[in-house]
This record gives sequence, structure tokens and C-alpha cells, in this order.
Amino acid sequence: MKRFSLNQATTKHWPLPELVAGCVEAGVTGVGLWREDIQAYGVQKSAALARDAGLAVTSLCRSGFFQEPGWEEENKRAIDEAAALGAPALVLVSGGLPPGSRDVDAARAHVGEAIGALVPYALDAGVQLAIEALHPMFASDRCVVSTLKQALDLAAPYPAEAVGVVIDTYHLWWDDAVWEQIARAGRERRIASFQVADWVTPLPAGVLLGRGLPGTGCVELRRFREAVDAAGYTGPIEVEVFAEEVWARPGREVLDETLELYRTHVV
Amino acid sequence: MKRFSLNQATTKHWPLPELVAGCVEAGVTGVGLWREDIQAYGVQKSAALARDAGLAVTSLCRSGFFQEPGWEEENKRAIDEAAALGAPALVLVSGGLPPGSRDVDAARAHVGEAIGALVPYALDAGVQLAIEALHPMFASDRCVVSTLKQALDLAAPYPAEAVGVVIDTYHLWWDDAVWEQIARAGRERRIASFQVADWVTPLPAGVLLGRGLPGTGCVELRRFREAVDAAGYTGPIEVEVFAEEVWARPGREVLDETLELYRTHVV
Repeated sequence: MKRFSLNQATTKHWPLPELVAGCVEAGVTGVGLWREDIQAYGVQKSAALARDAGLAVTSLCRSGFFQEPGWEEENKRAIDEAAALGAPALVLVSGGLPPGSRDVDAARAHVGEAIGALVPYALDAGVQLAIEALHPMFASDRCVVSTLKQALDLAAPYPAEAVGVVIDTYHLWWDDAVWEQIARAGRERRIASFQVADWVTPLPAGVLLGRGLPGTGCVELRRFREAVDAAGYTGPIEVEVFAEEVWARPGREVLDETLELYRTHVV
Repeated sequence: MKRFSLNQATTKHWPLPELVAGCVEAGVTGVGLWREDIQAYGVQKSAALARDAGLAVTSLCRSGFFQEPGWEEENKRAIDEAAALGAPALVLVSGGLPPGSRDVDAARAHVGEAIGALVPYALDAGVQLAIEALHPMFASDRCVVSTLKQALDLAAPYPAEAVGVVIDTYHLWWDDAVWEQIARAGRERRIASFQVADWVTPLPAGVLLGRGLPGTGCVELRRFREAVDAAGYTGPIEVEVFAEEVWARPGREVLDETLELYRTHVV
């Protein structure tokens, strides 16, 4: 339980003060927060809310989107927000192909350069940039980084305290190279965040909101948890599920079920 | 034009005799056929129809589904059908996880063993089994073989005349290892079929019917065609698109547009 963290996206419509109170009541000690929510509530106010409740902010989701105009300023703002919240890791989703482009190699190379440009700022802020590989079904429109190997290769030129990776079971479970890459991520001290969701089918239109709570799908979640542990990772385990039918339910009910499933299928 | 082949799935509702006549009128010399269609029309009758029209049957789609009861008999029947049609390649889609299973490694291993069991029968029939890697978004429910590297590794223990691979742009475009694996496939004489479709988003619910005609999406189709050529492949280039809005249109209209797009984006 002490490693469990509730990613805010799992209980998307639970207002932040209620979420914080609900976590405290349930004995949860960490939360992963989202930029749009902390911006709406106020960054400093959000930071104070979590701090006063004794909750660690385990990650801030998310920035990146390096094909958008103004990506550099936007990412620096996100780094500032992560620092203000005391979040050790800022999750980066790289964005897809630029409009009209078919050049995925160039898009991936640009992601590496863009991250490099943010490294000094991240080091100054004490925030680790966490490159997230998204499932290849998002490669064209959301994230050209599709495997843990790609994420680690992009991180490689930079110091580990500035650039790490996210290991997200939902995005990586299908990849038979993931186990050796998790071990590599540990050796290279790059594991910035470990996020858990399950894979369920059929996928909904748009494929974004089709995740399952832990244990409701086909991912070997415990195998992932044991692999990150074996790689030397001792940090938080965030449950992050995007699903309309989960969002439709009361936050506390979802949190309680998530904790039960986490105990059964993850730890 | 002489390498172009129309995969029947692109014009799904075009009855076989009309499809054959339409291909002949358009100067097309090859078709890829589907088992349910040739079974409905009659296997021998379908073979005669294509032969009498001077059309080569470039592949038969599809068999595999090795987690189903009776897979061995069903796959032998498919090999017989391919032989009857004179199709050099039988496309194998491996099937997903067995019901209730989370063990994707075991499912992949079983695919390799099942293919091995079919090798003598395929050699006798003169049909090459063509392992198709499907996009990782199908890994749980349709095909546990997710990359060209996996397909080639599964084929490796068996003679190339018995077991090859399909290179399908739709399924493989996101993979940065695909180029070295295409070269490997050529070296190992495993390229049994080259199929072309484009990647378009947003994906529809269920994600099966979201493909685009060549040039309507983000795949570097010409780069793929040049890569298979450079690997020594000189066989047919099938266009295979599953999309409700394409299926809703008259077959001949779709064929003419496909030919135009093929000339512009593939050759």
C-alpha cells in the first residue's frame, strides 16, 4: 500500500479536494496529478492541498507534444508546475506526426532534440522528464515514441536525473522486448514512473478511453511489477485508467475497487 | 501494373464473377482471395473462374487462429484450398490469447509449434505458409504475432519454401526495426506476400475496419515497396484495405481509384 498512487485520470470527474480527502481516508499516500486540473484549481493551491494532506505528488501528467507551436515555452511551464507540486517526474507524451507529414523517423528525431533543449531547465528545476512510450496504435496522432527501447534510446544522450522513462503496462504489454528493456532502464537509472492499467477489448472508437482497471484485462501486471522491482525501482506504482464507464462512477467507489484490484493483481 | 494485385477484401461486396471481369477489364492480372468467398462460390469454380480469365491468385486469406479447437484440420483444409486455387501463399493470422489467458509468451510459442505441425502438409501441397504480423492493437484478440521480427523468428526453424512472412504496411509502419527486418526477410527468402494499406485516424470502434486506400494516410508506402524490392522480392503487390466507407462503393469505382493511388503512391 505504501507504494500505491492514484493517478487522477482514473477518477477524472472527482474534484481535487474530494480526491485528496478520499485518498487520505483510504490510507493512500500518493497521487499523480494532471496539468489541466491543477491549473483549473490553481497550481500553488493544489500543491498546498496535497502537502497539507500529507500526500506525495508522484508525477505530473503531462507535457511534450513537440510538434505543436510553442512547445518549448509550454514544456518549461510544465516543468515549473511539476517543481511547484514537488512532483519528481513530468510525464512527456511526444505528440504524433506533424500535420501532413509521413516522416516518422524525422518526428522521432525531433523529439530527441526537443528533449535535449529542455534538459538544462529540468536540471535547474530538479524535475526528471519522463518519456512515455505509447502503444503503437497512437503513433501517428498522439505519440511517435512507441516502444520502451525507443524511449530509452531517446533518453540515452542525457543525464538520468534529467531524463527518464515511464513504464506503463497498458502501452507496453504486447512487446516481447519489454523485459530486457525494463532491465536496461533499471541499469541506466531511467525508471521515472511506473503506471498500471489493463488491456481490454473491444477497443472503443478513437481508442483512447478503452483501458481497464487492474485485473480486468490480459496484462501480466504482477510480472511487470516484479520486473521493475528486479530492475531496482522502489518508487510509486500509479494506477492510471482512462475509461468512460469508470469515470461515470463515484470517485471513492472507484478508488476502493482499484485498491482491492491492486492488492490482488499487482503487489 | 504487372505486379498489382487486388485483394478481394478491398471490394468486399463485389461478387466474385464481377470482380474477376472488372479486373480483366482494368488490365489487372492478380487477385488475392478470401476463404469465405471462395467457399461460398465453390473452391473449384473459383479456381476455374480466375484461371479462365487469366488472373493469378496471388494469395489466399486466411487461416491460422491456432487457439481455436480443430485448428489443425482447419488449416489443412485451407492449404488444400490454396493449392486448388494455385495460390502460392496462404496467409496465417495466428489468433489471440486463449480464453482467460494472460500468457502471451505461451500463446506465441504455441503458434510456432502449430506452424511446425503444418510444415509437411504445406510442403506436399506446394503452398507457402505466410505468417502475418498484425498491429499490436490486435495482440490480445486476433494475432499474438505483433512484429516482423517475431514472424521471422517463428518461421526460422522451417524451410523457406514452407514458411514465409507477409509484409503488410498497415501493421508494420510504426516499427523502426521493420527496415532491417525486411532486409533479413529477403536474405532468408521469407517474403511470401507484400500487402499495402494506409494508416488513417481516428480508428473506428473495434479498430478492424479503419484502413485507408494507398496515399490517404501516413504510411511511407513507396519506402516499403523500395525496401521489399531491395530485399529481392519481385512478387505481387496486393492492395488490401478494410473500410466500411470503401466497401459501400461500387467495386469497379474502388478498383479504378485504387489503381490510380497505387501508381501515385506505391510504384
